[in-house]
Amino acid sequence: MEFSELIRTGQAQAELLRGPEMPPLRGTLCVTGHHLLLSPGPQATPDLWLLLLRSVDSIEKRVAGDAGTITLRCKDLRVLQLDIEGVEATLDIARSIEALSSLESVITSFPFFYRPKGLRLGEAWHFHPPERYYKRIAREVLLRSSQPLTGPQKLRCAEDEELLRAVLAEARPGARGFIVDTRSAQAAKQARMTGGGTEAKAAYPGWKRLHRPLERGRPLQESFVRLMEACGDPEQSMDRWLSRLDGCRWLSHVKEALSTACLAAQGMEWEGACILVHGAEGTDSTLLVTSLAQLILDPLSRTMAGFQELIEREWIQAGHPFQLRCAHSAFSHTRPKHEAPIFLLFLDCVWQLGRQFPLSLEFGEGMLLALFDHSYASPFGTFLCNSEKERCLCEVRTRTHSLWSGLNQPKEQRKLRNPLYVPNPLAIWPSVEPQSLRLWQGLFLRWTHPPEPSEVAWEKVWQIATDQKTEGSQPTDSASEPQP
Amino acid sequence: MEFSELIRTGQAQAELLRGPEMPPLRGTLCVTGHHLLLSPGPQATPDLWLLLLRSVDSIEKRVAGDAGTITLRCKDLRVLQLDIEGVEATLDIARSIEALSSLESVITSFPFFYRPKGLRLGEAWHFHPPERYYKRIAREVLLRSSQPLTGPQKLRCAEDEELLRAVLAEARPGARGFIVDTRSAQAAKQARMTGGGTEAKAAYPGWKRLHRPLERGRPLQESFVRLMEACGDPEQSMDRWLSRLDGCRWLSHVKEALSTACLAAQGMEWEGACILVHGAEGTDSTLLVTSLAQLILDPLSRTMAGFQELIEREWIQAGHPFQLRCAHSAFSHTRPKHEAPIFLLFLDCVWQLGRQFPLSLEFGEGMLLALFDHSYASPFGTFLCNSEKERCLCEVRTRTHSLWSGLNQPKEQRKLRNPLYVPNPLAIWPSVEPQSLRLWQGLFLRWTHPPEPSEVAWEKVWQIATDQKTEGSQPTDSASEPQP
Repeated sequence: MEFSELIRTGQAQAELLRGPEMPPLRGTLCVTGHHLLLSPGPQATPDLWLLLLRSVDSIEKRVAGDAGTITLRCKDLRVLQLDIEGVEATLDIARSIEALSSLESVITSFPFFYRPKGLRLGEAWHFHPPERYYKRIAREVLLRSSQPLTGPQKLRCAEDEELLRAVLAEARPGARGFIVDTRSAQAAKQARMTGGGTEAKAAYPGWKRLHRPLERGRPLQESFVRLMEACGDPEQSMDRWLSRLDGCRWLSHVKEALSTACLAAQGMEWEGACILVHGAEGTDSTLLVTSLAQLILDPLSRTMAGFQELIEREWIQAGHPFQLRCAHSAFSHTRPKHEAPIFLLFLDCVWQLGRQFPLSLEFGEGMLLALFDHSYASPFGTFLCNSEKERCLCEVRTRTHSLWSGLNQPKEQRKLRNPLYVPNPLAIWPSVEPQSLRLWQGLFLRWTHPPEPSEVAWEKVWQIATDQKTEGSQPTDSASEPQP
Repeated sequence: MEFSELIRTGQAQAELLRGPEMPPLRGTLCVTGHHLLLSPGPQATPDLWLLLLRSVDSIEKRVAGDAGTITLRCKDLRVLQLDIEGVEATLDIARSIEALSSLESVITSFPFFYRPKGLRLGEAWHFHPPERYYKRIAREVLLRSSQPLTGPQKLRCAEDEELLRAVLAEARPGARGFIVDTRSAQAAKQARMTGGGTEAKAAYPGWKRLHRPLERGRPLQESFVRLMEACGDPEQSMDRWLSRLDGCRWLSHVKEALSTACLAAQGMEWEGACILVHGAEGTDSTLLVTSLAQLILDPLSRTMAGFQELIEREWIQAGHPFQLRCAHSAFSHTRPKHEAPIFLLFLDCVWQLGRQFPLSLEFGEGMLLALFDHSYASPFGTFLCNSEKERCLCEVRTRTHSLWSGLNQPKEQRKLRNPLYVPNPLAIWPSVEPQSLRLWQGLFLRWTHPPEPSEVAWEKVWQIATDQKTEGSQPTDSASEPQP
């Protein structure tokens, strides 16, 4: 099918409202195969406003008189309003956006057409071969898997048992093993009915099973949706805000994820134990725990390159089904099926680490925001598909650009790096007491509230740090603060 | 009465536990007239630990076997535990601390004996004459008063009426006046029964009354007590923490105070109106509103000197009864009578301003913490007594040192100033949406949780900023982060 068949209208006059802090834009609106464009005319700056259609999460239209209004709720949590001249044009544009933003085809998606200047196809796809990592961590034993397929007959798997026996035998003498199951004991037992299950104690001598249930799937998606509903309501009292924040349970999920990662990391660091993490499929909460445990323990994973490697290895190559999980973010009216913001929960936990250890991560909040945005809708191919197999089928690595090649350009560094970074060779143990955890305002309130004040201070720190390097120059006075 | 009569014991061996982040101290404990001292012996560093007895808020003793434990909850919200050898010694020390920490006499209090090196008596007491301020703001009309004493007979006061008429006549032509009453309309009406009341509309032409009820007195004190109970409980779930934070309503008080200050400031800035603020006495919530409104509008009040002037003028000279309000902080078991953390609420609101405008205040969080500590217990005389009259009677200005002379010493500046300060000539309008307000972790969790991460970053920023001034020097690597 050609994109042109889905585009119902040529162009229309429209005004775009982008939120409380930004001036409205007027101009000519037009829909292309992958973008919504607003061209404000020859004198205007910026001369073109552009939205990737894939980033539209939900669309709402209203008509009155001879004009219409389209409200677009985006996957990056922005809410945009378009006031359009002409009822017919409004309805046509709305239908076009609806159709084009929900296309499921991977190989006709924008990353397969995106050819930015200065980047070469094929670049930065292979700079994270996992072999290098395996060599480095040969005695650090953190394993992940899916559940054992014991089923109702309590089947055993000799190869699995041999593997875990060998892991303990290779580790230091007397080392113990812990299996961190991210389901409750009951859920793990019930999984037998559908062919899954959990490790029988007798079959894995030396290994002890611990259950640390983490929410995933639908409850997590609903938590995200409810959080965004609370964040989007400016007219509430302090009491109501706190009770809604409580009710949506997002921060409880953050607390549980960090606690479980600390448990795994403590087992390795303090007891020299071998740790195996799994839930059911091994592609969701398992990855959350193993990747956070590595950030806590491994200083290299806290560098810019190491963090990209971590995401490539622990999320993308490990088979987190990004296309299913990130099909919609918080605004879609479709009932969640496979959607779940587990990668967002990971980014939030990393943000909490960065907040508690402001010098220890080489990347800043900007990097986490970029990863969130690109995981839900991106011109790059890195987060496409659900597995390595699908990516090979679609030839993602040869036909799209890697996000890392985009982010690692020098012009992107200022907004991604932490100006205060000092390499820290120690483990960073986060406090998981509820008093120590915070709502990630920079993400959840990004488009509706003035920028997080620390971001304003950051800009000033960058200036000071940059001026320091350019010897003899003076600090400028251009640092500005939000003024409603 | 001599202090020696209240001191029951000479000395005892003890161990002092100072909280999760600090190592215990062992040594010889001794009570003096004004201090509790622990001397760890000749080799130890630091060689003496010292606590001003006046800063003890509540004391709890337990004995078992031949030893005892005293728990001291301090007005600066610290909790200290003393494990003492000997039951008799424990009881004697506890009784001595109880008696000496609750002495009501002003002129035998420590400020009358405190003679630090490098400071001269009488210094810095007169460097804030209000006349200078009146000259500067001759056309900025923000007034404060107590309630009019209309009483049940609805008395009128010709002088008051003439004064408010003259204020409008002196302002720009057509200027309106607003009376911001910090009580509810009902409470203002009820005040007539006890001789107070509110301005009759007919008697004050051109003035409009607005009621913006702010909590004060007992509800505010109880809110503070409940907040500290919630902060002190580390074993709770995220849900429980958020619902307790909600239940204590402290952040609601912050929101209401800032909203009312914005209302007063907007009247002046946007409508050119004259504003009169009062509640009942004019010494509590009135001062909260007028001082915050000035910080919002007046860039000079955001400098270090201007802020000290503001506190001197709007709180101390205006007659906020510090001795009554700050007799106890959050831990005392006595039922609150005159205690109320209204000055703390002011400091919290200023902290929120500083958080939202991180470049616009010349002073940092350290200054606000110092003011909190000194307002509840201090070796300086600045916050002694309840009024100018009492301070004159006690000869506070000639017989004690001014806090400002202590704080303005060069060695204190690093912890009090904001390294990112850039003078901002504009009004700073805070967001009072619940999503924008935060718990002041640096104060309420100061002794139980690792330092607020921004404080750690601050230290690094200071280094960078200082190194920048010392040309050619290199940034050091000594910035450290909390490690549990």
